[in-house]
Amino acid sequence: MTKDFRSDNTLGCSPEILEAITRAAKGTATSYGDDEITARVRVRCSELFERDVDVFPVITGSAANALSVASMTEPWGVVLCHADAHIHRDELGGVEFFSGGAKVITIPGAGGKLHAADVQNAIDGVRNGSRTGVPSVLSLTNATEAGTVYTNDELRSLIEVARRNRLRVHLDGARLANAIATGTSDLDGVDILSFGVTKNGGMTADLIVVFSRELAEGVSIRWHRSGHRASKSRFLSAQIEAYLTNDLWLRNARHANAMAARFRDAISGRVEIVYPVEANMIFIRLEKGVYESLTRDGFLFFDAAIYGPDIYRIMTGFSTTPEDVDELAAALEDRQSCLSC
Amino acid sequence: MTKDFRSDNTLGCSPEILEAITRAAKGTATSYGDDEITARVRVRCSELFERDVDVFPVITGSAANALSVASMTEPWGVVLCHADAHIHRDELGGVEFFSGGAKVITIPGAGGKLHAADVQNAIDGVRNGSRTGVPSVLSLTNATEAGTVYTNDELRSLIEVARRNRLRVHLDGARLANAIATGTSDLDGVDILSFGVTKNGGMTADLIVVFSRELAEGVSIRWHRSGHRASKSRFLSAQIEAYLTNDLWLRNARHANAMAARFRDAISGRVEIVYPVEANMIFIRLEKGVYESLTRDGFLFFDAAIYGPDIYRIMTGFSTTPEDVDELAAALEDRQSCLSC
Amino acid sequence: MTKDFRSDNTLGCSPEILEAITRAAKGTATSYGDDEITARVRVRCSELFERDVDVFPVITGSAANALSVASMTEPWGVVLCHADAHIHRDELGGVEFFSGGAKVITIPGAGGKLHAADVQNAIDGVRNGSRTGVPSVLSLTNATEAGTVYTNDELRSLIEVARRNRLRVHLDGARLANAIATGTSDLDGVDILSFGVTKNGGMTADLIVVFSRELAEGVSIRWHRSGHRASKSRFLSAQIEAYLTNDLWLRNARHANAMAARFRDAISGRVEIVYPVEANMIFIRLEKGVYESLTRDGFLFFDAAIYGPDIYRIMTGFSTTPEDVDELAAALEDRQSCLSC
Amino acid sequence: MTKDFRSDNTLGCSPEILEAITRAAKGTATSYGDDEITARVRVRCSELFERDVDVFPVITGSAANALSVASMTEPWGVVLCHADAHIHRDELGGVEFFSGGAKVITIPGAGGKLHAADVQNAIDGVRNGSRTGVPSVLSLTNATEAGTVYTNDELRSLIEVARRNRLRVHLDGARLANAIATGTSDLDGVDILSFGVTKNGGMTADLIVVFSRELAEGVSIRWHRSGHRASKSRFLSAQIEAYLTNDLWLRNARHANAMAARFRDAISGRVEIVYPVEANMIFIRLEKGVYESLTRDGFLFFDAAIYGPDIYRIMTGFSTTPEDVDELAAALEDRQSCLSC
Repeated sequence: MTKDFRSDNTLGCSPEILEAITRAAKGTATSYGDDEITARVRVRCSELFERDVDVFPVITGSAANALSVASMTEPWGVVLCHADAHIHRDELGGVEFFSGGAKVITIPGAGGKLHAADVQNAIDGVRNGSRTGVPSVLSLTNATEAGTVYTNDELRSLIEVARRNRLRVHLDGARLANAIATGTSDLDGVDILSFGVTKNGGMTADLIVVFSRELAEGVSIRWHRSGHRASKSRFLSAQIEAYLTNDLWLRNARHANAMAARFRDAISGRVEIVYPVEANMIFIRLEKGVYESLTRDGFLFFDAAIYGPDIYRIMTGFSTTPEDVDELAAALEDRQSCLSC
Repeated sequence: MTKDFRSDNTLGCSPEILEAITRAAKGTATSYGDDEITARVRVRCSELFERDVDVFPVITGSAANALSVASMTEPWGVVLCHADAHIHRDELGGVEFFSGGAKVITIPGAGGKLHAADVQNAIDGVRNGSRTGVPSVLSLTNATEAGTVYTNDELRSLIEVARRNRLRVHLDGARLANAIATGTSDLDGVDILSFGVTKNGGMTADLIVVFSRELAEGVSIRWHRSGHRASKSRFLSAQIEAYLTNDLWLRNARHANAMAARFRDAISGRVEIVYPVEANMIFIRLEKGVYESLTRDGFLFFDAAIYGPDIYRIMTGFSTTPEDVDELAAALEDRQSCLSC
Repeated sequence: MTKDFRSDNTLGCSPEILEAITRAAKGTATSYGDDEITARVRVRCSELFERDVDVFPVITGSAANALSVASMTEPWGVVLCHADAHIHRDELGGVEFFSGGAKVITIPGAGGKLHAADVQNAIDGVRNGSRTGVPSVLSLTNATEAGTVYTNDELRSLIEVARRNRLRVHLDGARLANAIATGTSDLDGVDILSFGVTKNGGMTADLIVVFSRELAEGVSIRWHRSGHRASKSRFLSAQIEAYLTNDLWLRNARHANAMAARFRDAISGRVEIVYPVEANMIFIRLEKGVYESLTRDGFLFFDAAIYGPDIYRIMTGFSTTPEDVDELAAALEDRQSCLSC
Repeated sequence: MTKDFRSDNTLGCSPEILEAITRAAKGTATSYGDDEITARVRVRCSELFERDVDVFPVITGSAANALSVASMTEPWGVVLCHADAHIHRDELGGVEFFSGGAKVITIPGAGGKLHAADVQNAIDGVRNGSRTGVPSVLSLTNATEAGTVYTNDELRSLIEVARRNRLRVHLDGARLANAIATGTSDLDGVDILSFGVTKNGGMTADLIVVFSRELAEGVSIRWHRSGHRASKSRFLSAQIEAYLTNDLWLRNARHANAMAARFRDAISGRVEIVYPVEANMIFIRLEKGVYESLTRDGFLFFDAAIYGPDIYRIMTGFSTTPEDVDELAAALEDRQSCLSC
């Protein structure tokens, strides 16, 4: 039993992925992404997304994001994203670095979501300034950093705003599987997708999926130039191939989502839940003493102070069990009642 | 008589500055900033600012800003400034470019001014995120983009916040003369100053003044590397020397400020004035028809839509005459009464 | 039996490394390099290199090189390296990109080796120019790109030149194991090492080893910012830990070297061998028809036209067998005699 | 009488240029390059170069070079130039910085000149390496850094090599007037010209002339973003307009060239002249004692050690007089004979 709810990236990896790597270790293969497994991943993604795509396996979602966005903008571009977006909050300026100094301008939005009207206002604001920079990219995140999931209508209206204003659209899909597992799946109009694998049962692989293929050459060169083109690329692609085989990616995501829902249901009404629980994250408000007490008991999860005081984040993943969840819910119930005596 | 109130940079230059250039044209001089006039400018600035400084003449305030800020931060730094700051609004990402991708995060503030508590909050917000970037520079602007002037107390509290949090302080002094002419002059704690000359009667010169001399080497190399180190540097320094001789800079600034005050007084009570008029800018609210009618009559000034609907900016300068101002005020009075008939 | 002699990166990986990954997949671990396995790798490397070091696992040698060199130079630095160095020839300007525009200046040298006097001349040449850039880094490669190995004396004299001129020293050790297996091991004076794992039986891991620990913070931030800090870092470190356990790295390297020597001995006197065979590469001169005939028979190896006309490269690795080598040697003997009938 | 032969940038400026600036100081003008004088310079250059061009006034030739070359290449491009080219030797990596890390690869050539076959070899060398970078720009310098001038045939064959290999062509014309004054004038196939003004009687102005107008937008944005777009642009353009009026540029250049020729003729046979004297520079070989003795007597000129031991450079300019030259020649004759007593 694990008491680790810190992140989906503190977990291990799916057995199918280990097996795939073991198989890939046999024999020799062309290096630098020109191997047969990577070729098959491209075919598989083209089927999955129902259009011809180019694919570039990388080791982190941050790499996928920065390489993707940099390939969509001039150095003087403006990249719009949610105030909590990973590209702004968590990557130490990776987009600014890879793009040669593009400007990331953030837009607030409740529950981790952007709204089309706010995006239009942000574009207008930049354009009125005229010498701020050239609005170039809208970067969306689905599932969001708040654990919510855009509806297809919400996605369409955001992408429509970007298209109407001639911005490229990047989708940070570090947890796209968790979103798609809920039924959201409309990627029409997305230019490049950062397709998460690692957080959902993978090991060390995420995938850049280029829908707008005129952008592929720029991605390809940046991929090599930044040291992200693995020589033994098959070991990344093998993970991704296994991930996309027999719906492993969806099975893992559905499970993680279900564990989060189970936890929400278990604590509902007794603990304040900050955002709708739609993917595999639950943000709750706790007294600090309760958090510390749980920590002393070996339950691991992070504070989420950037979302507000006394807010903490619980994250489930492919290997979280119902027992794990129930144990945490029970421990939480204990402490809360105790404190409220 | 000029009807041009578009900007202090649409005006010509002071006769003293032309004469200085003419004198400098005689004979030969060491190039690339190692000439005697540049050396004298350094001595003069050291006297003026009452500490040993290094100086680097450049052709634009944008160059001064970008070179200065880039020399104060690592590429992963965060630069904090007002939402209307020139470095954010008007320089097409110059700071991001020169710094290797630093992140400019803006802070709103009424009347073009930052407030110490908001700066502290912004720093805390970045630090809580922990992987957004490293808060490195606070860039202030005085006189502000809204034509207001910080009091010494306001400046001190802002600089104190920066110092307490180990941020460097940059002062965009494109209109520092206009601020100092009002009595504000406290530069204690500023690391590098972009000292404006061009807008206040100069021709093609602004000056980087480095107070924290350990930063001078980085400025010097960037100055050369970016093509901003003029070979016939004496022709920039001669402008600056004349500017700082016999208080030309203060006389020009006082005159420009007085012209703005004269205009304010002339229209006060009849036209909405948006910000306190403390330097050489007046922001007013006009019906669009009035603006167009004045334009047809040859009065030149810009809309300032980024500050809100129906807002226009009138700017005075060293060569604006009382007659210029009175004529505009009269024309404005005409139209306003006409429209309100 | 494999007929693949294209590169040590077309091979699979050592079973010990697969086993280590499988073990690492169990349980949960702190992410982003703060896991226990990465901590153990640091301890192991400190023992191995007999000084306290910092370590940063990455996915490619190119990443290790670019992150290391960028952390040793200002953007206006000059990086000196051999004309055939990977950082110059094979990384699409990764060093220039990561450093913010440093200048890579190459120095020719027979057999892939630099000579101390040539390095001194290059430094002098740059310094005399004075505005070319600031000589900042000497990047050495051992084993070299030509398959030769520096003697300790050669290394010492090169490092001594760098030190005397206040340059930092980077060692591209993509094949350091192959060099150390021959007895060369003197790393005194090296600031940062790119320690190769992938090419010598690893899967997707190389290691930045920072000897000059004041450089570690810069490496660490660049590592994160460029998307090279894997969230499930234990899966890289597990590879490296296995690599450094029970001398796997040396056993693999000795084997690869022995296979190259076996091939050299087999063809010696009948085929022109271009460089001394000291590590796991053999450069030979072939008629193009011979190359094509071998290719048709399924033997895979690359032309090496950048080294001269009709030059081809044979590379052995941890999984190359004596039978592989003997078969290629026999096939080569066949064709050569045939052609010379 | 001036004894200053250090550089054409230690001299003052032509009276016509001062007068033009004085005229430009009157009245007001649209700022940031949208003034009428800049518009006239564009028309004048279109006439002069017999095609529609875009023009961007800047303060230095280094800025012109870096902005031009950066606008012709991706960040992973390779820029080829002569080993003595200003962009390589004298600008502290400005091209690398402005381009986002392009690689400058130099080609040797006697007398400061490139040869078409060597350029082809360099391109082939880069392309064979395949991952060095993408050959993108050939940067030529005319008159050369050695004071020689390309013939039209030489220029054509170089440009033809670039075109055939799909490289853009940049011409560093810091001393283009000196070259054209000799009859060389073929600019067909050049994409962007750095057109020198400062060194030939100007004050603080050089001009980017864009022949391939699809490149103009990129130049324009970089010009602003890097702080090179002067707000009172008319003061740069006024210099350039005067320069191009009544053949001032050619008259100045012819005079400077004639002074160099006069000096060459005066010392010919008695002092070793290193390169053909075709423009306004003379490289001579002197004993160090002679140089020091002349220096003590107030004659100023630089050693040119990067060209070889005991080599010194004499430079003439628009204001050098026959008397200046004769005096130096006489002093030199004195010392040489004295030393050889």
